[in-house]
Amino acid sequence: MADQVKVAILGASGYTGAELIRLLATHPRVRLTALTADRKAGQTMASVFPHLAPFGLPDLIALDAFDAAAADFVFCALPHGTTQEIIAALPRDTKVCDLSADFRLRSLESYAEWYGHAHLAPDLQAEAVYGLTELHRDAVKGARLVANPGCYPTSAQLPLVPLLEKGLIALDPIVIDSKSGVSGAGRAAKEGSLYTEVAEGMHAYGVASHRHSPEIEQGLSDAAGQPVMVSFTPHLIPMNRGMLSTIYVNLANGATAADLHAALAGRYADEPFVKVLPLGQTPHTRHTRGSNLALIGVVADRRPNGAILACAIDNLVKGASGQAVQNMNAMLGFDETLGLAQVPMFP
Amino acid sequence: MADQVKVAILGASGYTGAELIRLLATHPRVRLTALTADRKAGQTMASVFPHLAPFGLPDLIALDAFDAAAADFVFCALPHGTTQEIIAALPRDTKVCDLSADFRLRSLESYAEWYGHAHLAPDLQAEAVYGLTELHRDAVKGARLVANPGCYPTSAQLPLVPLLEKGLIALDPIVIDSKSGVSGAGRAAKEGSLYTEVAEGMHAYGVASHRHSPEIEQGLSDAAGQPVMVSFTPHLIPMNRGMLSTIYVNLANGATAADLHAALAGRYADEPFVKVLPLGQTPHTRHTRGSNLALIGVVADRRPNGAILACAIDNLVKGASGQAVQNMNAMLGFDETLGLAQVPMFP
Amino acid sequence: MADQVKVAILGASGYTGAELIRLLATHPRVRLTALTADRKAGQTMASVFPHLAPFGLPDLIALDAFDAAAADFVFCALPHGTTQEIIAALPRDTKVCDLSADFRLRSLESYAEWYGHAHLAPDLQAEAVYGLTELHRDAVKGARLVANPGCYPTSAQLPLVPLLEKGLIALDPIVIDSKSGVSGAGRAAKEGSLYTEVAEGMHAYGVASHRHSPEIEQGLSDAAGQPVMVSFTPHLIPMNRGMLSTIYVNLANGATAADLHAALAGRYADEPFVKVLPLGQTPHTRHTRGSNLALIGVVADRRPNGAILACAIDNLVKGASGQAVQNMNAMLGFDETLGLAQVPMFP
Amino acid sequence: MADQVKVAILGASGYTGAELIRLLATHPRVRLTALTADRKAGQTMASVFPHLAPFGLPDLIALDAFDAAAADFVFCALPHGTTQEIIAALPRDTKVCDLSADFRLRSLESYAEWYGHAHLAPDLQAEAVYGLTELHRDAVKGARLVANPGCYPTSAQLPLVPLLEKGLIALDPIVIDSKSGVSGAGRAAKEGSLYTEVAEGMHAYGVASHRHSPEIEQGLSDAAGQPVMVSFTPHLIPMNRGMLSTIYVNLANGATAADLHAALAGRYADEPFVKVLPLGQTPHTRHTRGSNLALIGVVADRRPNGAILACAIDNLVKGASGQAVQNMNAMLGFDETLGLAQVPMFP
Repeated sequence: MADQVKVAILGASGYTGAELIRLLATHPRVRLTALTADRKAGQTMASVFPHLAPFGLPDLIALDAFDAAAADFVFCALPHGTTQEIIAALPRDTKVCDLSADFRLRSLESYAEWYGHAHLAPDLQAEAVYGLTELHRDAVKGARLVANPGCYPTSAQLPLVPLLEKGLIALDPIVIDSKSGVSGAGRAAKEGSLYTEVAEGMHAYGVASHRHSPEIEQGLSDAAGQPVMVSFTPHLIPMNRGMLSTIYVNLANGATAADLHAALAGRYADEPFVKVLPLGQTPHTRHTRGSNLALIGVVADRRPNGAILACAIDNLVKGASGQAVQNMNAMLGFDETLGLAQVPMFP
Repeated sequence: MADQVKVAILGASGYTGAELIRLLATHPRVRLTALTADRKAGQTMASVFPHLAPFGLPDLIALDAFDAAAADFVFCALPHGTTQEIIAALPRDTKVCDLSADFRLRSLESYAEWYGHAHLAPDLQAEAVYGLTELHRDAVKGARLVANPGCYPTSAQLPLVPLLEKGLIALDPIVIDSKSGVSGAGRAAKEGSLYTEVAEGMHAYGVASHRHSPEIEQGLSDAAGQPVMVSFTPHLIPMNRGMLSTIYVNLANGATAADLHAALAGRYADEPFVKVLPLGQTPHTRHTRGSNLALIGVVADRRPNGAILACAIDNLVKGASGQAVQNMNAMLGFDETLGLAQVPMFP
Repeated sequence: MADQVKVAILGASGYTGAELIRLLATHPRVRLTALTADRKAGQTMASVFPHLAPFGLPDLIALDAFDAAAADFVFCALPHGTTQEIIAALPRDTKVCDLSADFRLRSLESYAEWYGHAHLAPDLQAEAVYGLTELHRDAVKGARLVANPGCYPTSAQLPLVPLLEKGLIALDPIVIDSKSGVSGAGRAAKEGSLYTEVAEGMHAYGVASHRHSPEIEQGLSDAAGQPVMVSFTPHLIPMNRGMLSTIYVNLANGATAADLHAALAGRYADEPFVKVLPLGQTPHTRHTRGSNLALIGVVADRRPNGAILACAIDNLVKGASGQAVQNMNAMLGFDETLGLAQVPMFP
Repeated sequence: MADQVKVAILGASGYTGAELIRLLATHPRVRLTALTADRKAGQTMASVFPHLAPFGLPDLIALDAFDAAAADFVFCALPHGTTQEIIAALPRDTKVCDLSADFRLRSLESYAEWYGHAHLAPDLQAEAVYGLTELHRDAVKGARLVANPGCYPTSAQLPLVPLLEKGLIALDPIVIDSKSGVSGAGRAAKEGSLYTEVAEGMHAYGVASHRHSPEIEQGLSDAAGQPVMVSFTPHLIPMNRGMLSTIYVNLANGATAADLHAALAGRYADEPFVKVLPLGQTPHTRHTRGSNLALIGVVADRRPNGAILACAIDNLVKGASGQAVQNMNAMLGFDETLGLAQVPMFP
């Protein structure tokens, strides 16, 4: 079809790759022309992701066999640390949305500190746009390379950034207690991701040391106009999908929880994918499942001067592949909701 | 929009009602004009099904307040036994798809035996068409009232009917061991449906006495041209959605498992929603999740003369609301796939 | 057997009742002589809790039919609000452990505020001992009536009380983000507790308004010697059992996270049921499943002056019935570990 | 303690190894003296199985470092195919219970066919006793080497063997539709065992080709006095523990379902671990969870001459480690229930 763009997915054998395919399969302006995979090159989708078997997809190819000229737009859904040189090798007129963490941190020092090696494509880093769409829409529209945000940072920044911009909350303490479904851990065969190790139980991990901390703090510091440091603790929950960040803040400058609610409701009033619940209500992750929605709640704390925020998303959609498609739409001048009409699936 | 039909859902506060809304929300030819609920009349969708809150739906009304003139097409998603008189009271020019069991059994005697009371609308029963779409398409297209099949009967008849029609399998024994997710039990607050009663365990129920037995046998007997009695045992599995029927048969007339496979592959070659896996493979329920797909597998048994069939569906989609939309599409002359483009959601 | 005490369970048809039976079935000094239930009086255990069928238990009787003289010790596992008058009617020489919230709050005003009615047995309230065994052992040993703590308060006070007693943490903010399995909601048939409403998702509930808040604050205020107000948010997690409280505090008086760890490790060094993990590690709920263990972790926060505590328990054991048995052991002069030898069940 | 036997577990880093420890921790006649592991040698139990950290266990050692003289009794919980030479190298006066499949098949030809290589210890195979305790108790008591049955064969033989011995059922067809929790797949890090690949779905596997088929048929053929071939299909269910085999048979020699029920009830009347439910009832796996119980149900089929049997066990207990402890008790002349007093844990 003349008005379809040719789209490639590099790293199509992981969960974010599969989720991109699920969403793009109903996108009227997209044709998937190439799917790469590392260890699974040469296999059909029917063997790698049987749920995608009926949809007439190209077989998986090795990255080396990918002909960049065959794609107008490239999604990189590769592991962290591997995409810097790959994207650097793409033609300059190919637009790219990178789902890894490689281009999210503006500070090369911070990148080196948290990821253990010097950045391999500092020039690209300088031009990369951080793609939390609702917060950076204009920059995304003009970008050639978008760094798609992490799932935790998405759920933390959506409620916090507008409040910090308006000075409605104190900079400290900001406690972000986040809970994630297991798909966030990817499809790698690790003991800790086994059904038997995850079901019927829960735990915190990466306490005070998770790599999403500097990404969250970058966004919050920008919003506050000064450095912000948060207490961020992720937890692993026995569910496939879903992410909830419960956030504890102190009010500032005489603000009330109602003020916070009004600020968020106003900020997101026209957004198709961000919904603010009535004051006092908090969201369920299951009400976003499979959709690109983010649901935000605000509650007054019993502690005088305290407020509790909560943000629920599907970690694979608004937390990854859905936001990536949203960014692609913005970058290509499409309606931002194309391919993202999925209604949440409950139960 | 001039080319949209006005659709009402009677019984929109249950899971099949909510699932109809999820599917119809993306249907280009449908406008939802009325949603009724019994105990929840007067409530908004935001309170009854928060996941549907963002989609601009009408509030729930009592059945008494439903103006039949406001709808061109009606879905009945009411409890078994309650719909006979309700449908009888609808205008004759309103087309209806009934998701309950009320009009599925052709035999009024069988209905009375299994449901404990005489049928209340025998005339309607006489005109009702059993809507397993792939097997009864022509009748569905001309029907005014379609009885949407049960989830278990759908998963049993799709693989068995073509084989019985061709005489490829023996009439006895036919063992149907079925496993269902919990959403099939509905949203009623029953002790047996509590999370704590269902998670981390499984069990059979309704052994040799489930009401879907006569429905299955009606279809199989029609196909065989003589009475068929099956051994059917349903099981409750700790998952929200998904149904798998594992079926054990004896081969007939010199047939092999490959013959069975060929017959099914041929029968469903052009069907958008029924896919036959390569011989020797059996399907996962998770590869149908959220979609209207039915996946069928055929394996030769070790027992000489035996074969094993398996059919996986999403019990709320092809097993209920998806097939209902498919039937509506056929009844109204639409493309059968409208509103049913959902790709299976995995994980 | 001459050295066995006769024990009754009032409210044996709920989950905490069943769990008492599971634990007491292997208790060498206990004979179960009476089990009462409300709506299920007259039924056998085989019908009410089939997993207990093989253990030769008495049938359930109505509360009215309970002969208090037949028991030396009574567990009350009845709904909140119903036990005040029932316990008041028991003989004065019958020792009682009450698993409800009825006698946990020392302040009658606070009780009336949070439970919506004046306390019905203020004299009993005055003599009741709050039974967080490790923290109140001496009082429990001499008590006639023990108020068994709530699950959330157990998981919050075990790590916080020793730190507040020593002045190692600031009184504000104390953020307690708690996550619970579904069994804490009991066996009542409520829509919100259905498998389909709980599985594959999570949410906060009772935000800033949960009744365990004043119970937690009572214990923390006692420890601090001045009023403490916390930010407490419970969440419902799709698992049967398990509770994790992640707690965010500020350090006080120059203390470090290592100081907090040392204080807790020292405090619980000789406790059979409370284990402090090495500094920097946090516990999994699954490592306590089915046992009376509480596992505590301490981690230094990235925020200067911050620390993160975590406490994992099985909400039905250390959070309810196990601690009740532990209290009974203390009240009757038994070894505190009798009947509580269960090794955590993983996976 | 003078009357404690020294017990070693070879392969203590898998789930059956951990489960042996859970059960033996409360066994009054057992002292664990050695625990071996392959890749995890040198690690503490606190790091390999944190739930066992509080129980004062020896560190894991390499198999090479195991001093056979240090143990009176050895459990082998090693992968299939690896134990033949290991057990052959143990002192002749060391009693052994092997949880692998290596010594279960009497026929060396059958072993070679199903396991792909000639048996490496045919002399040992000749003396090994198949340890389905209730069916082979006398032989187990006198055995030096017991081959502990597989989980599926245990759940199939317990209901079928007594019926075949008495000629109450036909030899064909015997359809065994089995469903297992995920712990049966072990702790190996495989993609197919990931939480995300297993949760919210189910599927059959090893259809008509599972290695437990010849083991089941060996036992049934012995009971029938002639070769029996079954149709056996295992399924993977999203739960940690639990196994249910639903079995479809034809009645023989004028027998009724009530006759089958009476035969089973009589056969197991005095067994502490096998319970036959009232005629017409079928068991839940959750009512055996964590215990060594097997629950059996019998229901008359609608098909004239048909009957349905069901057997539920915990695959890690009666299906593996519990039965192994039961066998050890029998081999050492202990009461068979020692260490096996666990009450099922529900919910």
